[in-house]
Amino acid sequence: MIAFRTLLGAAVLAAPFGLFAQAAAPKAPADLIVTYARVYTADDARPLVEAFAVRDGRIAFVGSQREAAVLRGPNTRVVDAGGRTVIPGMVDAHAHFSGLAQTLRSVDLTGTNSLAEVIARVVAKSKSVPKGTWITGRGWDQNDWGVTDFPTHDALTAALPDHPVLLERVDGHAQYANMAAMKAAGVTAASKAPVGGQIIKDAKGNPTGVFVDNASDVLEKQVPAPTAAEYKSALKDAIALMHSWGLTGMHDAGATRAAIDTYEELAKAKELNLRLYVMIGDDKAALDHYFAKGPQSAMYDGQLWVRAVKLYADGAMGSRGAALLEPYSDDPNNSGLLKSTQEHIREVAERGLKAGFQVNTHAIGDRGNRVVLDAYEQALKTVPTADHRFRVEHAQILHYDDIPRFAQLGVIPSMQASHQTSDMYWIGKRLGPTRLYGAYAWQSLLQTGVVIPNGSDFPVEQVNPLISFHASIARQDARDWPAGGWFPEQKMSREDALRSMTIWPAYAGFQEASMGSLTAGKFADFVILDTDIMRVPAEMVMKARVVSTYVGGKAVYEAAK
Amino acid sequence: MIAFRTLLGAAVLAAPFGLFAQAAAPKAPADLIVTYARVYTADDARPLVEAFAVRDGRIAFVGSQREAAVLRGPNTRVVDAGGRTVIPGMVDAHAHFSGLAQTLRSVDLTGTNSLAEVIARVVAKSKSVPKGTWITGRGWDQNDWGVTDFPTHDALTAALPDHPVLLERVDGHAQYANMAAMKAAGVTAASKAPVGGQIIKDAKGNPTGVFVDNASDVLEKQVPAPTAAEYKSALKDAIALMHSWGLTGMHDAGATRAAIDTYEELAKAKELNLRLYVMIGDDKAALDHYFAKGPQSAMYDGQLWVRAVKLYADGAMGSRGAALLEPYSDDPNNSGLLKSTQEHIREVAERGLKAGFQVNTHAIGDRGNRVVLDAYEQALKTVPTADHRFRVEHAQILHYDDIPRFAQLGVIPSMQASHQTSDMYWIGKRLGPTRLYGAYAWQSLLQTGVVIPNGSDFPVEQVNPLISFHASIARQDARDWPAGGWFPEQKMSREDALRSMTIWPAYAGFQEASMGSLTAGKFADFVILDTDIMRVPAEMVMKARVVSTYVGGKAVYEAAK
Repeated sequence: MIAFRTLLGAAVLAAPFGLFAQAAAPKAPADLIVTYARVYTADDARPLVEAFAVRDGRIAFVGSQREAAVLRGPNTRVVDAGGRTVIPGMVDAHAHFSGLAQTLRSVDLTGTNSLAEVIARVVAKSKSVPKGTWITGRGWDQNDWGVTDFPTHDALTAALPDHPVLLERVDGHAQYANMAAMKAAGVTAASKAPVGGQIIKDAKGNPTGVFVDNASDVLEKQVPAPTAAEYKSALKDAIALMHSWGLTGMHDAGATRAAIDTYEELAKAKELNLRLYVMIGDDKAALDHYFAKGPQSAMYDGQLWVRAVKLYADGAMGSRGAALLEPYSDDPNNSGLLKSTQEHIREVAERGLKAGFQVNTHAIGDRGNRVVLDAYEQALKTVPTADHRFRVEHAQILHYDDIPRFAQLGVIPSMQASHQTSDMYWIGKRLGPTRLYGAYAWQSLLQTGVVIPNGSDFPVEQVNPLISFHASIARQDARDWPAGGWFPEQKMSREDALRSMTIWPAYAGFQEASMGSLTAGKFADFVILDTDIMRVPAEMVMKARVVSTYVGGKAVYEAAK
Repeated sequence: MIAFRTLLGAAVLAAPFGLFAQAAAPKAPADLIVTYARVYTADDARPLVEAFAVRDGRIAFVGSQREAAVLRGPNTRVVDAGGRTVIPGMVDAHAHFSGLAQTLRSVDLTGTNSLAEVIARVVAKSKSVPKGTWITGRGWDQNDWGVTDFPTHDALTAALPDHPVLLERVDGHAQYANMAAMKAAGVTAASKAPVGGQIIKDAKGNPTGVFVDNASDVLEKQVPAPTAAEYKSALKDAIALMHSWGLTGMHDAGATRAAIDTYEELAKAKELNLRLYVMIGDDKAALDHYFAKGPQSAMYDGQLWVRAVKLYADGAMGSRGAALLEPYSDDPNNSGLLKSTQEHIREVAERGLKAGFQVNTHAIGDRGNRVVLDAYEQALKTVPTADHRFRVEHAQILHYDDIPRFAQLGVIPSMQASHQTSDMYWIGKRLGPTRLYGAYAWQSLLQTGVVIPNGSDFPVEQVNPLISFHASIARQDARDWPAGGWFPEQKMSREDALRSMTIWPAYAGFQEASMGSLTAGKFADFVILDTDIMRVPAEMVMKARVVSTYVGGKAVYEAAK
């Protein structure tokens, strides 16, 4: 073509060039090169590559094997992934760090299929525990026993006469106690439930042993605290467990000041090895303390963030504590419970906005969700703020009118896909057919333009984040039921499901500039998997195993060979 | 849940908090707010929003309307998009800036359906041009005339006896001249074609008027250059035309030093209003000059990048100048032409690597592509470099063995989807059935992990980038032919097609940190469209119209109302 070629001879005007010369390609040797991999970066600019390099704990280069090899120096560690899959380190955007630590110290009741099995596990534990010492457990679900009624204390009391026993339901919203525990807490027929709680009683008015939501407090208070050393040790066990499942970060959904101080000790000692985004529990003294201090991000070289608050609006579906706009379909006189008033949520939200803190409120029922959205809307009118990134934790059951309000208010629905597959067996009975269209409505929400940080809510659910990944893309349980998926129109694409466990939790924690994708300059947090979860049939996803997990370019977990 | 609640009373260890406190949400008023929109950001962290704010020419906030409204100050301009669609400013990753300017000065022959129509348009132009003055034109394609043979000069000479006329074929790889032009250039039966070119001659050995590839030079050299003022004025017309189609940036695929100096004058005078990524044409003096200077990025406040080189390996398919591994199916003694030797490409590539310049080589045929990949591979062995981002321009016809080599070498295939829909009517005759599986093989390439910056190759094709967007997702022409698309397995997803016109051109220009998506901190380059090209049926995409185009937060185009 002509292209003014002849202008070459025209007068050339000398003009100063700018100062923004791009740095030459990185040439310093890398500390680590991961190569021969199929790398899903969660970065639009370069979605799929075969290698990357790490320097000083951060990604230095993303691209081809040959190019990465250029950055190999005498001290570079090279990880040949053997053609396996690499994804950014997964982040659980809603879970309970100390809860997991506690769970690791108590009896695991998940997967029990009968009350007898529950009791047998506790009896087994009691043999190594001195009489009079409390035994705690967690994870029972009477829906798995072929009944829907709560258990009663008789059998537990008979099997464990000499140990106070307190067993938390799988959703954390009910406690099951034996007589020794009730005696220690002074619970009698005369005891009254506090606001937001329920003490289940039999026909004669005697407590049956089950305490719902706020009513649990009186028993929980009796359980002695672990020592500081026991606590730290349990936290480290929890970290190791997370690493083994490919988690490099988590959002701790409600922590006390004492817990946060302990997290900070671990971070200082370089023993956290986790991007830990803390939500401060709803405690006035703690909030006063942290609000005065101001938001704290990326402390201790990117280990700890304290700039969010966790509130509770209502309870959960399993124990019928979630606040509904209309009564439960299987309990026509019960519409659930509000654990906080709208006024309280509004007030903390306003304080949070003024102090620069994010406010994240647990809401499960459609009434709970509406109350939170209303409270946030009021607060945002009083303290207008851009980029607040307020969140609703769970956002499980939504009235159709409320689905677009998240995008409109700029509120992030922080959802746990694992809840959908755990609850689908019985949620229809609680809600009836119509309300199910707003249940775990991921696609309806995504279409409005929100992002959905995903999570597990461990120890309510299992730690393995691939359970939520699989639920997100299949809406099926681990046995691939039901065929085609439960309300399959709400499935996420695999791309969105990967985002929901990587870049979207980072966004939901104001961390997307330094985390959440494999992009040059970001923290080198990543996971090598033995299965390509982005391509294998959905029914093979749950068989994927973590080969190794890296935080800041350092291996924190390697599977046994 | 228990969550070590009782630890609250434990000793609190005072620990210093880090220094990385996150800045509070942005509170300074915005210069511009775009709201009530459906915004596709091309950013994984926040793919879809309804509003954004701009400050100092850059994106300041991306999210909800309500939040954006918080940033409204007394001097903030608010653009209510009326529910329309916004995408990042589109970038044409392969086009000819000066060529477009030249085209705007010459006779437009695109869409002509007969030789008579071509001649009629030139005759019309000649009425306002003094005798003896050159007339140029561009855009004829004999395949649209119901013939495949090249035209001969007789009719053109008869109709235009007194003006030298030079008419470029639609693909830029052949020129059609009248006798006055051939006389002016001294072309006779004795003239020999240079290497890489062909002078078509009749049975008697006389030139017929058509000059292929390098043979065009002798005629083109005779066309007098426009004056500097004419040139600048034509460039400004080209910029205005780009803006009107939603382009906020382009990669100029081969510019002379004089052209680059003129671009720089426009940039200095703030008249460029374009993210112009220049590839320096293959001229030794120019390369010596720029290599000595070093790579220049984001000059004049992000208007001009000079850090890349454009080479040519072969010609084009239409004029059978593309170099093939086996002969043309419709011309069994012809395998096309190499315009540069592999040795030359290797040598410039090595110099580019040493100087920090990207090297981008035109290659259309499977032999042309293999030669470039081989040359790059040799250069990268001699000068190993990470993140070189070398490109093959067009990468149209690939041997199956070469498809994975792009990802392996870290080479970017820079492709123009519009070529597929322009060529599909006759490409099968040129190549036969088997080679078509490697033709315009977007999905085959994407699956290997490369990105594909998209473009138009204007003025070879039309400026409207939605032609390539539509071709990318449909592999159909503007009349939606063929049903289902041509080799439909190679279609791109809409998400990838959007990336190919926004974030992937930015990546291909080392610009992804400041361009290519609507992300806080990046340049505020965006387009408002009257149609949601990400959701409407594919056959409605070409009906989409640009409502307005913004560069650095300033409107550079507004459609008439």
